[in-house]
Parts: sequence; structure tokens; C-alpha cells
Amino acid sequence: MLRSTSQSTTGPTPPGCTTDSLAAAITAFRQTLTAGQVLTGEAAGADHTDPYAFTEDGFLPSAVVGPTSVEEVQDVVRIAGEHRVPLWTVSTGRNLGYGGAAPRVSGSVVVDLQRMNRVLEVNTECGYALVEPGVRFSDLYEHLRSNDYPLLMSVPDLGLGSLIGNTLERGFGYTPYGDHSTIQCGMEIVLADGDLVRTGMGAMDGNSAWSLYKGGFGPGHDSLMYQSNFGIVTKMGIWLMPQPEHVTVCMAKARDESDLAALVDTLRPLLIEGTIQSNAVVGNTLAVASMITDRRTWYDGAGAMPEEAIASICHALGLGRWNARFAVYGSKELVEARLTRVRSRFKGIRGLEFVTTEYAGDATADQVHPADRAQMGIPSTDLIRMAGWRGGTPAHTDFSLVCPPTGRDAVAQMQLIRKRVKGYGFDYAGGFTVNPRHAIALALVSFDRDSDDERAKVARMFPELISDAATAGYAPYRSHLAFMDTIADQYGFNDHANRRLNQRLKDALDPSGILSPGKQGIWPPLMR
Amino acid sequence: MLRSTSQSTTGPTPPGCTTDSLAAAITAFRQTLTAGQVLTGEAAGADHTDPYAFTEDGFLPSAVVGPTSVEEVQDVVRIAGEHRVPLWTVSTGRNLGYGGAAPRVSGSVVVDLQRMNRVLEVNTECGYALVEPGVRFSDLYEHLRSNDYPLLMSVPDLGLGSLIGNTLERGFGYTPYGDHSTIQCGMEIVLADGDLVRTGMGAMDGNSAWSLYKGGFGPGHDSLMYQSNFGIVTKMGIWLMPQPEHVTVCMAKARDESDLAALVDTLRPLLIEGTIQSNAVVGNTLAVASMITDRRTWYDGAGAMPEEAIASICHALGLGRWNARFAVYGSKELVEARLTRVRSRFKGIRGLEFVTTEYAGDATADQVHPADRAQMGIPSTDLIRMAGWRGGTPAHTDFSLVCPPTGRDAVAQMQLIRKRVKGYGFDYAGGFTVNPRHAIALALVSFDRDSDDERAKVARMFPELISDAATAGYAPYRSHLAFMDTIADQYGFNDHANRRLNQRLKDALDPSGILSPGKQGIWPPLMR
Repeated sequence: MLRSTSQSTTGPTPPGCTTDSLAAAITAFRQTLTAGQVLTGEAAGADHTDPYAFTEDGFLPSAVVGPTSVEEVQDVVRIAGEHRVPLWTVSTGRNLGYGGAAPRVSGSVVVDLQRMNRVLEVNTECGYALVEPGVRFSDLYEHLRSNDYPLLMSVPDLGLGSLIGNTLERGFGYTPYGDHSTIQCGMEIVLADGDLVRTGMGAMDGNSAWSLYKGGFGPGHDSLMYQSNFGIVTKMGIWLMPQPEHVTVCMAKARDESDLAALVDTLRPLLIEGTIQSNAVVGNTLAVASMITDRRTWYDGAGAMPEEAIASICHALGLGRWNARFAVYGSKELVEARLTRVRSRFKGIRGLEFVTTEYAGDATADQVHPADRAQMGIPSTDLIRMAGWRGGTPAHTDFSLVCPPTGRDAVAQMQLIRKRVKGYGFDYAGGFTVNPRHAIALALVSFDRDSDDERAKVARMFPELISDAATAGYAPYRSHLAFMDTIADQYGFNDHANRRLNQRLKDALDPSGILSPGKQGIWPPLMR
Repeated sequence: MLRSTSQSTTGPTPPGCTTDSLAAAITAFRQTLTAGQVLTGEAAGADHTDPYAFTEDGFLPSAVVGPTSVEEVQDVVRIAGEHRVPLWTVSTGRNLGYGGAAPRVSGSVVVDLQRMNRVLEVNTECGYALVEPGVRFSDLYEHLRSNDYPLLMSVPDLGLGSLIGNTLERGFGYTPYGDHSTIQCGMEIVLADGDLVRTGMGAMDGNSAWSLYKGGFGPGHDSLMYQSNFGIVTKMGIWLMPQPEHVTVCMAKARDESDLAALVDTLRPLLIEGTIQSNAVVGNTLAVASMITDRRTWYDGAGAMPEEAIASICHALGLGRWNARFAVYGSKELVEARLTRVRSRFKGIRGLEFVTTEYAGDATADQVHPADRAQMGIPSTDLIRMAGWRGGTPAHTDFSLVCPPTGRDAVAQMQLIRKRVKGYGFDYAGGFTVNPRHAIALALVSFDRDSDDERAKVARMFPELISDAATAGYAPYRSHLAFMDTIADQYGFNDHANRRLNQRLKDALDPSGILSPGKQGIWPPLMR
């Protein structure tokens, strides 16, 4: 795609835009955002470039604007439209491993919504919150606890990100409400021309079911905002789970490398029937180990860690070759009935160790083992440690592949990822999030950001991983900025009919092409 | 909106279309649909007008085409686009109470997809089916039973309708999979220009997660097809529940009219926490009675049935003033643990009678009480009896209002509906479908189709009901053809921004405006 061609004090100039028009837009931003913030030059780059960059592509902003209200967001898109300056919207920009707060097109003005951070409503009767994009998981958690609301939220691996941002990227957590796109209900959206739309029941002034009933009258629009560049979400409803009386977090440790298929096939029916209510995180030895230790403690050689070193980690830390963590929730009787059934099913896997930990539903962070916090809806930042596995300057990127939740598919994905990752001399620290009807293979590739060699390897390896997956009939659900086009290319049914549909929607909703060009491979006409 | 202005042997000519262009289109349909069917004149009207018409609006088709394949659907839209003939798509046209198979705009050619009726795939491992629009609930049920698939489906009140049609209208059933829009996954869509799109993972050729993972890469498109005129859905994935070992259907009969609030407030937390897995159908005495008896047996006077007659029905048939039916599913231990909790909560309502019936999860129709079949996923046509309540030629229309699932909201909606319905001399046979986070007030108004007076009353009463609801902050989620514009008008946030968005999408996806003009108040430019 087009690259920025010139530099100025305001940073790179985006394609289709002159230095003058960019400068005029920035002046207008400064004049208009009286409460908000406008950053240019080094200040713009400080927090809005890829923290874990591994390609030569810049992904550099020309400026950063931080609106504080819906009206300021409307001002921003109108100014951008007038001067044809591309924007790149982030809620808080913590999309770590996928590009962070950096824009796909260098020279874009990053719209950072972190200053719009109000929890607008919490309803304990029906269990929901209405939030702005700047509300982080940790903010909502603090809000719930400090008000003693008996509600349990879902949090992803890292609690520092935005609820809206994570949900729009189809992120997930680990409680029964872990599939964030399914517990989201109703949005307020600023369109590219500044029009303000509320979806679902919010389309009716004062209707009290905005955050409760997804339907509304006529077509649903919320899913159009997922991984898209069709609008800017300024409010979103999200469902919260009533705090259960009891939670038991379970860890099933399988002894053999070959137990993966049995583990997934044991989990699937229990998940589909709802006996296990959370998803199950199935991690291999290195995935679990990288959260609690570092590589050099066990092995300091080049290339992928050898089998013997992995075996010794397994033994020393009491881990399985595959480790499934999940939880059951409810009254004492229901939790026990669930556990009885779960235990009896896992008896089918020889040598499997089944460990449970009981918590009160309202247990606080200090009462919960760090590894169990995700299942308890308690935000943490522990997982950031995984990026430091290899030593050097910690960096990581993620490969996230969708598949049916079957042992066959899990083994096939594991093998193709492991082969390619080890082929490049990286360790395969990975596993699956197993849901009732889909699994997501996750391989977290940690590397030394200061090593030219490692960065180059990551950049070469990823397209090969995507190609390996496509050959086997799989595709990622999410992508680093650098591979959005490559992944979108895999979705080729009927000569890329899905892309044609997206382009048609893009042209209708954002004819000037100012909103997040290139997001998920959706480009405005100028850049196609 | 525009009315058809002329008649011909091909029926009414739609607005924006000449008699000649309509005739040319029909000739082209006949030449092209070699396997499908083309009906005109009386044959077109026979099954494709409103079976329960109550307004003077015609809602009459000019012709009916019955394609047999995706290719024939593509041919139909291309011919319609060429001749600018509006189409009106129905899956099987059993949208009874809301207009049936009749088109919003008289003179439209009804595209009836009932000949595309293949169950393309059933997957027992992950629990889903991939179906065509002509597959009725009863067809899929027979398919599952005749193949002994251990899967339980969700069925709405009447099993004769299309799975796809019902789902796209946001219809619902009564098992844990009763909210059909949430268990739908992946679509194939013919756009107005004949382009063929697959959504979600189906956008990748041969990806096996099409019916399993809703996300895909980039924006989601499925919800755009709900209650819309943006495309024609030709395939859809739908999730199926693994047959549980045990099901216990519960009926909670509340003694007093004033128990409604307590009933809903007792149900809500049990539903949100998932102890009760199905929704709960809360019907008043007359709603339940109209399924099993008729009005004249108890009262034959004019006007709404008096209190004493209702009391005598209650007593004679052993009904409550409010009756909540729902079910719990699972292993013996889980069902028992659920029931223990449910019973203890309902003890809080004085005089309430709690009746349970136990079934094996694989019970067949002959083993299940007719009133419990919906909770067991067994299609039935019993509810059609309700339309005959008043005598005369049976007809009915439905008023469906969304609200938060609280006692306060239920009472407010009940009161406003009852007052208006009784004011017109109809009986209030109604209640609520209570879900974890929303309830839908349903009032089935049965009338004598052959009575000019009753039809006129229904036509006058409905706009008043919509207006009463709007004043109280509520709106319907679904509508008869005659009131789509009126209801769409209620969704007025930001000077009808939601409608503006829909019109923009309509113009982008169907610039000629041929697909179902007027559907849910979404009109093409010519007819705005």
C-alpha cells in the first residue's frame, strides 16, 4: 500500500494529503479541542508507535488527538474530513502484540480516546455497565469494588486495556462472560461525517433496554464496528455477571505431549452442555512456565529449547505437558454437581492430575492465586512477564488461529505452529482457548526487540505461518498491523466477496476514507 | 408511501414500475427459472397475501417466484434489478400475525424460498446444522429424529415456519437455545446485484468453523440481515443443543393478579445466573386458556370478558392468574440442584403453586404433554388455536413490546396493553417471555376476520398501543406490515440517526431499491 513520502515537524505526511493540509488540520484540532489534547512530533510518537515493532514499516503517527467528549470526537472527524487527513482510532491503545496504539498508515492522526473514561452507569438489578472507550478493565474493576456492587466482570490477560477496545477487537476473558463480543449490548457511534447513531434500543430516546436487548427494530449494527473502520464507538453496554456464591478454579494437568487431543475432546462436551461455564485455557509447559519464570534459568542455548529442558521444567514446576485451566460457578450444590461430572469425565485421561481451588465469589485479589485471577474476573498484569521469556528487551507478537474445538483440529494447529516456530529457533509457548464451539490457538512469540536478527525472523516467519494455516484450512481472527492485508487475503470465497462487501460499506459510511484506512485490510478507494 | 396505481393480469403494478416492465420481468423469470416456479394472478395471491388482514392496505403481490437454488436467486435479483421490479423475500412466509407472506408494497414480486429446503449439514460433535431458507422447524426436527442425532433444537410457538425466516425476524423458542439470533452463526447472502457473500469464517473457502465461530476477520455482517432488506439469506448455520439426560419442565402458578411483579422479579436472578436455562413464558389466565378452550364456553357477551368469567376459568382449569413455564436441563444431580434453588426462591410468593414434570432428554412428542413441547424442542401447531378464541373466522395479530426483565416494567407494560385492548372490547390474553436481560410483552389479539367492525378496531387500536408504549418509553421489536413505519418512527434518537444509517446502507447495498422496500421502515430513494 502507499507509504508516506515526506517528513515535517508534524511527523510523516499521510498518503493523499499534503504537508499543508495536514498542518491546517492540526491547527484546527488545536483550535477546536479546547479540553482535549493535540500532540505532534516526538510527543506524538512517544506512546503511539508499536512498542514491539519487528518490521521496517513505520506505522508512525503524524499527530495524536485526545478528545474528551463525543462532541470533540465529532469535531475531529469533521476536521479530518475537511482536510482529508486519515485518522486511526484507539480506545487506549493497549492492543499489545498487534501493534499497540500505532496506526496502519504512517502519517495518520491517532485518535486516542483514553480521556473519555467515564463509567456512565452500573445496573446491579439486570447486570450491566455502560462505559466510554477510555474505561480500562482495571478502572471498571475498581469502580465495582469501591461501590460494593455484587457483580463479577470478565477481564482479558492484561487488565490495562480498554473494555471497548478489547471487545471491538473480539478479545476475550476467562469467566462465563469471557466471549466479550457476545456480552456487548448496544453502542453509540460517531460516523465519519460526524453523525451520531445509537444502536439497538438506544435508537429510541430514553429506552431503558439499550444495554439489555441487542435487537432493536430493523438490522443490527453493533457487529459492523468489530475490527472495522466504519465508525468510532463512543459508548457501549457490557453485561456483568452476578457474583456467584462459590467458584472453583480447576487445573487439569496432562502428562503426555500426546494428551492434547483427549484434553480438548474431554473439554468440548462439558463446555457445550454448560457444565463448565468458563472457557478453558489449555497451555503447554512453556506457555505456563513463561508466566512464572524465564528461559535462561533452564536453558541458555540458541534455537528452540530442547525436549530435555522442557521435561525438567515440567518436573521442577509441577506442570503438565498440557495444562487446562477453567472454572465452575454457582451455589454450593451446583458447583459440586458440576465438579462431580467434570472429574468423572477427566478420569478418562490416564495420569492426568486434577487440582481444584475453591474461592468465595466475592474474593478479592489478595485472596486469589495470581494464576486464578482471570477466572475470578480480577485484572492483572502478570502475563506481561511472558514477553521477557527470551531476555533482551522484552517484546512479543501473537498468532491467533481459529478452529473447531476438536482434538483433531487442535493437534493439527499445534503441529503446524510448533514446526514453523521451532524452525525459526523460537520456543513454542502456546496453546488454546477452548470455547463451546470454537477454539483459538494462541502462540505468543517473544523476542528481543533490540536484536535485528530476531525481529527479522519474526517478520519472515509470520507470513509463512499464515500460509501454513491457510493450507490446512485455518485462518487467524486477529492480526498485527503488518499482516492485516495478508490475512484478509485468506478470506477469499467467491473471489473475495467479503472484501467487496466491506469496501462497499466503507464507501457508503466513510466516502472520504478518513477512518482507520487499512484496518483489517479494508482500504478507502485512494489506497486500494 | 406510494401505492400501486394500476392492475393487470399480472396483478397490481408496483410503484416506479410500468405494466410493461413488470410483464417483461415476469417473462424473464419464467424463461430463467427452469426448475423453479413463477405464479401470477390468482395463483400468486392464494398463499401470498396476509391471512389475517385487518387494514384496507392491499399488501398484494404481482407475482410469486419460487427459486430452487442459489443461482436461481441470483437470477431473480438480476432480472428484478434490470426491470426495476421490487421483490419481497420470504423464507416460507409463515410470519403469521405480522402479515404472513404478503409484501409491504403491493405489486412486489414475492420471492418464496420454500423450495430451497435442504438440511446441508448436521454436526453432532460440535452441535450445529447448516440449513437453507425453506427448512422448517418441523423439517429439521424430523431430520434429527429420523437420523437419531442426539441433539435438541429450539422451536418457536408454531413449528411450521422457516428456521431462517424466524431467526431473521428475531423470533424465539423456549429451550436454552431459545434466543435464535444468538445461536445463529454464519450466513450465505445474495446481494441485490447478485453477488454472493459468505460471512464470518465462511468467507474463507473450506474453513470448517463457518457455523462455529461468529467472528471471522473484520466486521461482522450477520446482524445486518436481521429484519432487513439488505440481502437474501440463502444459507445459515444454527447451533443445536446436545440432548441432556434429563429435563424438568416447571409451571409456577401465581394466585393473584398482583403477583406479576413478584413472579418476574423471582425469575430474573434465576435466569441471569443460569439456574433456569430456558426463558420463562409468563401468561395470564386467558393466554393459557385460549390454547385449550374457547371463549364462548365461558362467556358469550360483547366487550372484554368480565372478571368473574376469568375467575371461573382459573378455578375450573386449575390455572393461576399468572402462569410461568420454564425448564431446567442436565444430569440428574444438576437438575436437582437447579430445582432446589428454584423452589426455594418461589417460596417467597404466597399461595403460589409449583408443578414439575420430568422427562428424559430424548422424549418424543407422544411422551410429552402438549404444553411442555416447546421447552422440549418439539414442534407443534397447538398455538394456532389461540386465533380461534373469539369465534368467527380465526385471525390474530400480535403486539410485541421489549422491556427490561423487572416486575416494575412488566406491570407497566401489562397495564398499558390491557387498558387499551379492553377499551376496544377485546380480551387481554397476554403475558411475557422473560429472558435473563430482557422481557417481551406479547399480546395476541384474536379477532373475527369476517367482521368489518373487529378488523377496523384492530387497525385503529394498534397505532394507539404503539403510542401508549412510546409515552412510557417502550417500543415493539417486531411489526405487522401495516405498522412498520409507525414503529420505526419511535426510534428517533438524534432526529432518526438510526434510520439515516439504514438508508445509507440500503443505498450502498441495493442502489436500485429492489429488495423488500419498506421492510421495517427502510425505503429506497424512490419511495422515501
